[in-house]
Amino acid sequence: MRTGIATVCLSGTLKEKMQACAIAGFDGIEIFEQDLVTSPLSPEDVRKMAADLGLTLDLYQPFRDFDGVTEDVLAANLRRADAKFRLMSRLGMDTILVCSNVATATIDDDGLRAKQLAALAELAGDHGVKVAYEALAWGKYVNDYEHAHRLVEMVDHPNLGTCLDSFHILSRDWDTAPIEDFNPDKIFFVQVADAPKLSMDVLSWSRHYRVFPGEGQFELAKFMGHVVRAGYTGPVSLEVFNDVFRQSDVERTAVDAMRSLIWLEEQSAKWLEANAASVSNGSAADGGAGAKAAGRRRYPMELATLPQVAEPAGFNFAEVKAADTAALETVLGQLGFEFNGRHRTKDVQLWTMGHARVIINEQAPGIGDGSPAPAIAALGFDVDSPVIASARAQQLKAPVVPRKSQANEEVFQGFAAPDSTEIFLCQGSPDGTAAWTREFGGGLEVPSGARTAVIDHVNLAQPWQHFDEAVLFYTSALALEPQPYAEVASPSGLVRSQIMQTSDRAVRLVLNLAPLLQQDGTRHKTYQEHIAFAVDDLVATARAARDRGLDFLQIPANYYEDLDARFGLDPDFLATLQDLNLLYDRDADGEFLHFYTATVGSVFFEMVERRGSYDGYGAPNAPVRHAVQYDHLHQLTN
Amino acid sequence: MRTGIATVCLSGTLKEKMQACAIAGFDGIEIFEQDLVTSPLSPEDVRKMAADLGLTLDLYQPFRDFDGVTEDVLAANLRRADAKFRLMSRLGMDTILVCSNVATATIDDDGLRAKQLAALAELAGDHGVKVAYEALAWGKYVNDYEHAHRLVEMVDHPNLGTCLDSFHILSRDWDTAPIEDFNPDKIFFVQVADAPKLSMDVLSWSRHYRVFPGEGQFELAKFMGHVVRAGYTGPVSLEVFNDVFRQSDVERTAVDAMRSLIWLEEQSAKWLEANAASVSNGSAADGGAGAKAAGRRRYPMELATLPQVAEPAGFNFAEVKAADTAALETVLGQLGFEFNGRHRTKDVQLWTMGHARVIINEQAPGIGDGSPAPAIAALGFDVDSPVIASARAQQLKAPVVPRKSQANEEVFQGFAAPDSTEIFLCQGSPDGTAAWTREFGGGLEVPSGARTAVIDHVNLAQPWQHFDEAVLFYTSALALEPQPYAEVASPSGLVRSQIMQTSDRAVRLVLNLAPLLQQDGTRHKTYQEHIAFAVDDLVATARAARDRGLDFLQIPANYYEDLDARFGLDPDFLATLQDLNLLYDRDADGEFLHFYTATVGSVFFEMVERRGSYDGYGAPNAPVRHAVQYDHLHQLTN
Repeated sequence: MRTGIATVCLSGTLKEKMQACAIAGFDGIEIFEQDLVTSPLSPEDVRKMAADLGLTLDLYQPFRDFDGVTEDVLAANLRRADAKFRLMSRLGMDTILVCSNVATATIDDDGLRAKQLAALAELAGDHGVKVAYEALAWGKYVNDYEHAHRLVEMVDHPNLGTCLDSFHILSRDWDTAPIEDFNPDKIFFVQVADAPKLSMDVLSWSRHYRVFPGEGQFELAKFMGHVVRAGYTGPVSLEVFNDVFRQSDVERTAVDAMRSLIWLEEQSAKWLEANAASVSNGSAADGGAGAKAAGRRRYPMELATLPQVAEPAGFNFAEVKAADTAALETVLGQLGFEFNGRHRTKDVQLWTMGHARVIINEQAPGIGDGSPAPAIAALGFDVDSPVIASARAQQLKAPVVPRKSQANEEVFQGFAAPDSTEIFLCQGSPDGTAAWTREFGGGLEVPSGARTAVIDHVNLAQPWQHFDEAVLFYTSALALEPQPYAEVASPSGLVRSQIMQTSDRAVRLVLNLAPLLQQDGTRHKTYQEHIAFAVDDLVATARAARDRGLDFLQIPANYYEDLDARFGLDPDFLATLQDLNLLYDRDADGEFLHFYTATVGSVFFEMVERRGSYDGYGAPNAPVRHAVQYDHLHQLTN
Repeated sequence: MRTGIATVCLSGTLKEKMQACAIAGFDGIEIFEQDLVTSPLSPEDVRKMAADLGLTLDLYQPFRDFDGVTEDVLAANLRRADAKFRLMSRLGMDTILVCSNVATATIDDDGLRAKQLAALAELAGDHGVKVAYEALAWGKYVNDYEHAHRLVEMVDHPNLGTCLDSFHILSRDWDTAPIEDFNPDKIFFVQVADAPKLSMDVLSWSRHYRVFPGEGQFELAKFMGHVVRAGYTGPVSLEVFNDVFRQSDVERTAVDAMRSLIWLEEQSAKWLEANAASVSNGSAADGGAGAKAAGRRRYPMELATLPQVAEPAGFNFAEVKAADTAALETVLGQLGFEFNGRHRTKDVQLWTMGHARVIINEQAPGIGDGSPAPAIAALGFDVDSPVIASARAQQLKAPVVPRKSQANEEVFQGFAAPDSTEIFLCQGSPDGTAAWTREFGGGLEVPSGARTAVIDHVNLAQPWQHFDEAVLFYTSALALEPQPYAEVASPSGLVRSQIMQTSDRAVRLVLNLAPLLQQDGTRHKTYQEHIAFAVDDLVATARAARDRGLDFLQIPANYYEDLDARFGLDPDFLATLQDLNLLYDRDADGEFLHFYTATVGSVFFEMVERRGSYDGYGAPNAPVRHAVQYDHLHQLTN
């Protein structure tokens, strides 16, 4: 699959954008007109730079408001087009995007539109230019891709074809199966964009909220499957207008974009494979269009695949680091974790509780960054084959993390997540043990009080620039499934909370997009992250922890009064909850009990007990947690 | 008018919110339940703190999903209500907000709803509680305030009334005139919120984008006029869910909120005055409801007014400051400004060009902040009466700025805008001169080359936290009129651009909300602001400036090629534009020529010529300006 990206997706100047696209590995780019108009580079400079960078210049765009106009406007539009065709010749470009008219169309007549598009195609032919006509979702008269394609067929000119943009098609919920019947020679270009399903006007949605494939909710693999079945072999190019990407580091965003296409290519191949049956037997799937297309031609677009991985079987470990580890050791001990000794060559400790393992990394204070406070540093996931999973992640352009190891020590495959958390791929064993633990202490995991304890979930704070990137990263590299996000109130603003999990819930990862930090005054806050452990008997765990002196997050009495009003709990049970600072939630599937520790540095811990099939995270209790933590931090800093 | 605010409008803990509300001068507050539930303060603590702060506790809210339910759900709801009524008694509160059912209603029957609301009112009566029933805009069966009121009248219980929320009414475009016919004894509460007109689902709109009155586009004065005519005399309370306010400094936001109510009170009084005729003569305005209401009762709600000001007559001066003023002096001289001497007692210089005055403030470097780079520091506006305008601004809680002055020197009335720019109110004179200029140099303004030059507009960058606040500030304190905002592409992201102007365009102020600065890597950017001057002959001005060696912002050749493609300009004219780095725009009303200087510190200058009735700012050229400035800054910092 030939990969492309429109320069409008990225921040920076045209030069910076082109360089970033080349570094990220794109085959070609679309030149967004404004990026050229505002650039000090001449068209000849751009042409040479693209050649030097190994980028093809695939599409000049957009040319707006051409068709369905009066004669005088048509003349002006043809003059304007002529200037752009001459410019394209200097750029060495041969395809231009013409959008259906939004602003100046006054005549709703397909015959007239075809006549005007024919005139444009004729002029384009004189310049060796191909016109890719696209139906904008909010086009005044033409807003349906099939309508645009009918016009192309009416004109039937070698220099006029259609441009299919997934956003304009899927935002309107148009059926994509008819694409398969399109003559591939008339599909001049394919643009892809994903988007979250938002209920707002389609223009604003398109201009601000598009995301890269895999970061939204559109059925892009299916769309691409139809495009491939039609016989299209040209570039598949990203056109994503996104307020955040436009503000983010250009090279990072380009890599995120490339990752999305690599993933989409794989997903498209999978969709084609899964839907091959409907082609061969001519069933009614996809309205039979697939069958017709299959009868007509083969699929010449080559779709690369990636090393395949199943979703991870569980957390292997979580790692926290600190210059001074005393506070971490204390709180883990109070929670019931056992110290399993130090590593034989590294400055790390192993603490376990059942199958929950926490590594404490005794980080030397770096030069100039003072004494690093405790923070979550790394997560280990159990996968079938760390080598294959790592190969997959690397093909998805995940940055590899070097992990020092000595002879005879287990080598972890690791890479960096978008928020810099290190992700390690580990070989899980059927009995839930981990071979590497032999490198610690006496070489045996010490049994602890709660043998069935596991890491229930980990909650990581994401910088606002990298939230969508993180969703795609965990989706594509680690096969986690994103759930619809929730928003939780906190004293510093709303917190967007995105759950990523495996189908069996063995891995639950929560990505929190914290509010922008307050810049006023001195109340600069660091967002806190946490690791949650699941046990069978939370009340007993909490009692034991209290006996060991644990500093619980103190839950306000008002909370328990409200809990009682909402659920009408047994008075003894309510008293137990309040006595132990436990939080409670209930839904149709079951019950959830949990408590939090006080925060150490930027990390705190949670203990949970899931009763029945409760599948949530106690979201109604999150505002309480945020408020108490805020209050505590505020008292510390005032 | 009794003023109130819901705690959900503000950031921070309940204690911080209450303190901020008291400081801002609110009469009372609404307790948003979650703020109490998450607070370590007991209900008795809250009651005492409110009393100590002089705040009444006006409304407990929200109580959700009560009505239209099955018998078993009703029993649970009544139990839940009973718990809340008991809590309210500890808080010393007597009114609760009950929202129309969104989630659990299954029976659409007004008779049943009335019966269930009657049961709730009866229970409330036992606790001395009044239930204010509100139609949510997205209520399952009840989403129209008139429907809610009909239910209240059906029940006809002293403990059941209605709550009118401007958002739920105006977001649905309901007519507000019928409010006048409501029995005022049945209106238990009034909540006000403004909002920009957005095309999205009403729930998201409500939960994220509400703003304080005067910051959006709702006709709130009219809404309030009808409420006052109905005879309502209770609190007028802000309920504003806004993502930005929830993240901003609590005390600042509370003052912004209070300012919005002071302004709304004045606007409501004006609306009543302007619409008094329709009442007295029983005309058809407002569907005759006003007339009926007027016949029934007088308006007992007292509406305070503010000192009245007309819109400013023009800019009196703009002030830039710098530790090293040499670069500013150079560029102003090159633009054609004349040095009019130094102030006789202060370290400031006066530069003039026609009626455009620029003060250069020779700012001493502060301790610890190095050597301040040139920046826009202050703006002077010509007003009829600086004393009256200043009194108005102070009543609107604008922070007063001390301006040192000696005996016999003109005393400016000044205050600080939300972005810290100092705003001074000056006495304009009919001939366009300013008396204070006599304090400079020889005591006379030196005539300069372009006698008709004026300050055309000033463009100020606004921090994201204070953008809405700034709109209300300039609207309420300076009588500028906000226009619909535009968005402009820049290499660092979209720039939101909000024009505030007088009806005669003598004052044009542009507020730009810059993209969030990039936090990645080292490319930390400071957003640039500018002052634009209008002249009669831009080409001559540019030529003269070039002869004096001005460093123009260099416009790319591609821009002129695109200009030609778009407008088909005369080749000589186009060559002149390109030769002088002039930008061009044209619309149905006229033409616009302009050029920019290179940036000095964080400030640059623009020269414009308006031909015909062109009323814009060359918005299509803004991306060019942003790109070239970005490129230049990037070259400097790389």
